[in-house]
Amino acid sequence: MPKSDIKKVVLAYSGGLDTSVILKWLQVTYDCEVVTFTADLGQGEELEPARRKAQMMGVPDEHIYIDDLREEFVRDFVFPMMRANARYEGDYLLGTSIARPLISKRLVEIARETGADAIAHGATGKGNDQVRFELSAYALAPDIKVIAPWRDWDLASRSALIAWAEEHQIPVPKDKRGESPFSTDANLLHTSSEGKVLEDPWEETPDYVYSRTADPEDAPDTPEYVTIDFERGDGVALNGTAMSPAGLLTALNELGRKHGIGRLDLVENRFVGMKSRGMYETPGGEIYARAHRGIEQITLDRGAAHLKDELMPRYAEMIYNGFWFSPEREMLQAAIDFSQKKVTGTVRLKLYKGNASVVGRKSPVSLYSERHVTFEDDAGAYDQKDAAGFIKLNALRLRLLANQGD
Amino acid sequence: MPKSDIKKVVLAYSGGLDTSVILKWLQVTYDCEVVTFTADLGQGEELEPARRKAQMMGVPDEHIYIDDLREEFVRDFVFPMMRANARYEGDYLLGTSIARPLISKRLVEIARETGADAIAHGATGKGNDQVRFELSAYALAPDIKVIAPWRDWDLASRSALIAWAEEHQIPVPKDKRGESPFSTDANLLHTSSEGKVLEDPWEETPDYVYSRTADPEDAPDTPEYVTIDFERGDGVALNGTAMSPAGLLTALNELGRKHGIGRLDLVENRFVGMKSRGMYETPGGEIYARAHRGIEQITLDRGAAHLKDELMPRYAEMIYNGFWFSPEREMLQAAIDFSQKKVTGTVRLKLYKGNASVVGRKSPVSLYSERHVTFEDDAGAYDQKDAAGFIKLNALRLRLLANQGD
Amino acid sequence: MPKSDIKKVVLAYSGGLDTSVILKWLQVTYDCEVVTFTADLGQGEELEPARRKAQMMGVPDEHIYIDDLREEFVRDFVFPMMRANARYEGDYLLGTSIARPLISKRLVEIARETGADAIAHGATGKGNDQVRFELSAYALAPDIKVIAPWRDWDLASRSALIAWAEEHQIPVPKDKRGESPFSTDANLLHTSSEGKVLEDPWEETPDYVYSRTADPEDAPDTPEYVTIDFERGDGVALNGTAMSPAGLLTALNELGRKHGIGRLDLVENRFVGMKSRGMYETPGGEIYARAHRGIEQITLDRGAAHLKDELMPRYAEMIYNGFWFSPEREMLQAAIDFSQKKVTGTVRLKLYKGNASVVGRKSPVSLYSERHVTFEDDAGAYDQKDAAGFIKLNALRLRLLANQGD
Amino acid sequence: MPKSDIKKVVLAYSGGLDTSVILKWLQVTYDCEVVTFTADLGQGEELEPARRKAQMMGVPDEHIYIDDLREEFVRDFVFPMMRANARYEGDYLLGTSIARPLISKRLVEIARETGADAIAHGATGKGNDQVRFELSAYALAPDIKVIAPWRDWDLASRSALIAWAEEHQIPVPKDKRGESPFSTDANLLHTSSEGKVLEDPWEETPDYVYSRTADPEDAPDTPEYVTIDFERGDGVALNGTAMSPAGLLTALNELGRKHGIGRLDLVENRFVGMKSRGMYETPGGEIYARAHRGIEQITLDRGAAHLKDELMPRYAEMIYNGFWFSPEREMLQAAIDFSQKKVTGTVRLKLYKGNASVVGRKSPVSLYSERHVTFEDDAGAYDQKDAAGFIKLNALRLRLLANQGD
Repeated sequence: MPKSDIKKVVLAYSGGLDTSVILKWLQVTYDCEVVTFTADLGQGEELEPARRKAQMMGVPDEHIYIDDLREEFVRDFVFPMMRANARYEGDYLLGTSIARPLISKRLVEIARETGADAIAHGATGKGNDQVRFELSAYALAPDIKVIAPWRDWDLASRSALIAWAEEHQIPVPKDKRGESPFSTDANLLHTSSEGKVLEDPWEETPDYVYSRTADPEDAPDTPEYVTIDFERGDGVALNGTAMSPAGLLTALNELGRKHGIGRLDLVENRFVGMKSRGMYETPGGEIYARAHRGIEQITLDRGAAHLKDELMPRYAEMIYNGFWFSPEREMLQAAIDFSQKKVTGTVRLKLYKGNASVVGRKSPVSLYSERHVTFEDDAGAYDQKDAAGFIKLNALRLRLLANQGD
Repeated sequence: MPKSDIKKVVLAYSGGLDTSVILKWLQVTYDCEVVTFTADLGQGEELEPARRKAQMMGVPDEHIYIDDLREEFVRDFVFPMMRANARYEGDYLLGTSIARPLISKRLVEIARETGADAIAHGATGKGNDQVRFELSAYALAPDIKVIAPWRDWDLASRSALIAWAEEHQIPVPKDKRGESPFSTDANLLHTSSEGKVLEDPWEETPDYVYSRTADPEDAPDTPEYVTIDFERGDGVALNGTAMSPAGLLTALNELGRKHGIGRLDLVENRFVGMKSRGMYETPGGEIYARAHRGIEQITLDRGAAHLKDELMPRYAEMIYNGFWFSPEREMLQAAIDFSQKKVTGTVRLKLYKGNASVVGRKSPVSLYSERHVTFEDDAGAYDQKDAAGFIKLNALRLRLLANQGD
Repeated sequence: MPKSDIKKVVLAYSGGLDTSVILKWLQVTYDCEVVTFTADLGQGEELEPARRKAQMMGVPDEHIYIDDLREEFVRDFVFPMMRANARYEGDYLLGTSIARPLISKRLVEIARETGADAIAHGATGKGNDQVRFELSAYALAPDIKVIAPWRDWDLASRSALIAWAEEHQIPVPKDKRGESPFSTDANLLHTSSEGKVLEDPWEETPDYVYSRTADPEDAPDTPEYVTIDFERGDGVALNGTAMSPAGLLTALNELGRKHGIGRLDLVENRFVGMKSRGMYETPGGEIYARAHRGIEQITLDRGAAHLKDELMPRYAEMIYNGFWFSPEREMLQAAIDFSQKKVTGTVRLKLYKGNASVVGRKSPVSLYSERHVTFEDDAGAYDQKDAAGFIKLNALRLRLLANQGD
Repeated sequence: MPKSDIKKVVLAYSGGLDTSVILKWLQVTYDCEVVTFTADLGQGEELEPARRKAQMMGVPDEHIYIDDLREEFVRDFVFPMMRANARYEGDYLLGTSIARPLISKRLVEIARETGADAIAHGATGKGNDQVRFELSAYALAPDIKVIAPWRDWDLASRSALIAWAEEHQIPVPKDKRGESPFSTDANLLHTSSEGKVLEDPWEETPDYVYSRTADPEDAPDTPEYVTIDFERGDGVALNGTAMSPAGLLTALNELGRKHGIGRLDLVENRFVGMKSRGMYETPGGEIYARAHRGIEQITLDRGAAHLKDELMPRYAEMIYNGFWFSPEREMLQAAIDFSQKKVTGTVRLKLYKGNASVVGRKSPVSLYSERHVTFEDDAGAYDQKDAAGFIKLNALRLRLLANQGD
């Protein structure tokens, strides 16, 4: 990026060492103004320290943005995704992937508000997050410039980074001096951990990696039952108490934490072409995802349900790969949202030592018909003789085929 | 079915009351010979009583077939299906569905051997099993006749059935006199339960319904670690000990039983158009399914893995609906089997109170490359600058779109 | 259907011999009132004779419905389907399939208006139309009764039908006495022909079967150029003249007829399990379908376009099989309609002796960027070096795979 | 690419000006040996001039490879692709895309034979061909180096290229001095044209662009009928005369040329993110593709046929994007090839002024059953009453849905 092109940059700033180094590096390298943006996505960290650090590095107050995005995150990103029952590669609930487009959306908005010509992020050149940040940004602001210092600078090792920080008067916390044994990302939906101690996929994840969930072995010995109410595909209440989207997910996180729910050890395929091993904790998300499937079981027609299941892997892949703001994701969302019009009712779950099991579901608009399914007399609701014709015609092509000859 | 068309019928005969009534009913109604076929699919019941009952009802010895199909069942049906990671409607491991085509295959073979012109089964007119039996039979023997007494006779209630049995000197076991509170199907892969006490999907499944798994609350308080070895997509060893397909599944069932693994409470969509609520116990199958995904994580390329994930719901639907012997299932199987050529290696799982978690995987043909993924110096394996071009070209169409105008 | 259940029936009545026989048969068999419904879907026949015949058979005027549904047909059925570029089995533009749900919708509406308890149609038990009529009716009026005389009566041959007609004083037109050499269905979108002379799929369709299109050999020797304007995915003008949906299709039919466009000889797979051979003439529809793809080429993003292409076969199958009024079709429609927001612009086609070729397309919201694609200097719009990184990361997984070992 | 890494390069060499400049540029830039590879893919050009030019530029005879790949091209690439009925974006028969992997395969083989460490091609940085060449090469030889001079050198304009050529004593043919009004690619399957005069998608393709097909207006006024025989999915004879794959395609090309068949004007979406406008002539391929669909109509079961149709867009996209040598393409190929086991028989087509219409098909293993489909008495092959049950059960879920309430 030619220096002269960059006058003002909006940086996704956590307040941590890495993005602090980036902040300074942008100032030094581009001789430009830096606007910091720090989002509260429910990662569970204080945000005011980020403000103080930005101030310390000379960022004027009007260029320091600290936003609580928790409700928007859950309402406009997590819940729509959950309507699709999205899991990447069969299991991953996409906790990191779904947060990136929201951050990019705000980066671009702030760039417009402040007249900045570029945005910057602290994702490395090996991961998916750079792709997610940048595809989202380009989709929303096609002429934005994006600076990804990890791809550009020559700070190739941790010690180089720390040396550079010290050279530029950036305080290096004591616990950051040594190598962290793994790296994490956290928000209201999940905490992910990867790297170093996790890099051998044969080695079990050490206990100290987990931060969001109790070990199932330490979880309560007594199951806990909860209910979640859904309206039109979205959760609206826990145990009968109405809650906002972020409120509900927060409460479910606490339940999941307590019962050791939502741990996932995964080797996944990154969009950039390599496999990586990650450990995910998605306590409330796992409960919510199971509950959502539970309510769909009685309120969604088979045609809709099966179509959703078939579309889901593509939908999840789009989100994983960073194509949230793309016509294909929005098309699928239109189809999925259409299907949720009557996904309304209550699911009862049993939480116990890592398990979140649906044990009951009811709905004012249930499609489940005891009258039809019963082994007892069904009072003519279903004529068993119809099945003969049904089978005969389904079999016809197979019978013709069996006579095809060689 | 005109009487005169039916000279000899092969009946899928369990030895239980219902199929005993059917045996007699066929003799009485069609004045025909009945050949009984009783399969050992690992349902865990003695088969010799079935022989004695058939003899008692006048079936000559050469018309009594009792086959141990356990190895064929697991090798040629369960394992191929598991290669696809098949789960119907997100969860169901298809334990009943996958057994039906094998039974039909044998029914048809025996019909040919004995010169029978028809087969008969004891599935009702409301369920999926009639469809599965009959589609399989027609696909293999397009001109076979199929008799499904439950759709034809007028024994509309349990008491009518028992009265008819008594009238025809069929012994009615004491415990069959009252109404069974639910009905079950069992084989080496699973036990399913449905009906009566399970018919209200809001009511939790009562404890007494479970027969194959310990209650997780009663399972051992200490986790157990196991390894499963895979070769070309199929399990071949447990804890390093080589086992046959049925041997492996039997051993996993015991482990799953002990640790309370594989319980599933589901409301599902039947092919015949109604929703039904079932409870499944698939102890070994659940462990195996998770292990198979685990080994694929490090041995399967992303392109193959994602294609499999996208095809899976259709594949599972085909099996659920009874289209095992169909060109479309076989086409998908060809694709899936192709993908498994190097799905070889070892998975380590932790079993604990209902959880079967993959905690490690290794393979001589692993695609996981620590060299590429490491946060440490990768010695040039990956050039982070490539990511910039990768993102730029992936973003190009989105940028053009953002400039599309209105 | 028990007689006593049927008090009043709404019959889809064409005024032809077959449905006249059905009218009388319903009166005689059920001793019920019959309401006739005759739709103008652009089939090109006078409808007043149908009124007179109904009157002759004693149907009171208030029970004779004759509706011009042409605009609704094109606007709410044909155009939405065309947005999807739907072709069944690669070729068929679904001209018959798409008309059936509209007829059923009106049948059901009229049943409600007149307090009828049943509807009746003249489709046979071997075809798709019975399925389409009935699925649509049941989806809209789950408790409606449906009478399909062809499946119920014992008029197994043409001569039996004619004898019955004469016996009941139904006038039999002279040209209906002999066997028609094929049967047809027509509406504004197409004419289909099948049966008898077409039943051998090796024999070329005789000239006399074609009724809607000139033989390409007799078509003008000079090509004709036309333009079609689209707005948000739907055609709105021909050669710059604004037209209603039905107006546009009518005008395109005339052009297609003249230039011999839209003939299709197909062996297709019916939903009821057999193959059938049909000959379709879809003159205006073929031109329209090609034009729609043409305008999408420059206005639709690749992600949206490819997703549409992948979903299309399922969508077409749903319509062919009669599931227009189903959640899965409506979900796909939601996705497809979402994609059409900017499918606006003008397509130029060349019509010549059976060919309808897109030769130009332009749009105020074109995504085609000469600046990017040019072989000439692109003034920096595209950095060719980005391609190196793009390829490198797309190749990474393939390179790891090539090193996988055995 | 560091100079010192490159000792010997295999160049895909056409003998034309551009690749001659590349040959010299490689010698000059890398001071390396260049091995030339010139393939006969049926592009219709003399190859010996390429030999002489390579010799002139100092390439020793043992480093000049000229291979006739026509049979391999059609047998192992075109025909397998045609089995899938592959068309990209609804229309494009992938003539360029399918040739690239074969060229790369030979480049890599020659690199191994000659101990070369790199390959080079003449594709630009804006197109798809660079991706196709390189993905194929990396998939087959993960450590190969690839040189794409158009992305690397600073010959940004045509005049710069010509100046460089003259400076380095490369003969510049007179007709190459001016700007060519468009660029082409040709092989046995097709000729593509793009660029310059074609860059405005509103302008009709000028007559002089076409080189492989007669203008339909100049084509014979009399239709010509031909038959093509298929065995197991592949064409084997024309008008009853057995032919090799390349022989058949060559003969069909002549027929297509004469009758003006296979012209396609398309705006397509490139993998690198932009839209481009191309004109394709695929005379024999278009006839063959239609014939293949024709034979499938009577020999392929509906389940297989519909699955193929659904998979096709992905399959075509894989080939278009350069993923021929990928597990996902090979998986789909396994499924497709499985389906072709009985795609055997004869198709009759009518060729006339741009139209290639299937007018008849027959097969010893036809699935078309006149007995079932006939309007006449079918002697009990099909029981129309079965349709009632078939419809009833297909409707059941829709009826439950209609009663769902709000």
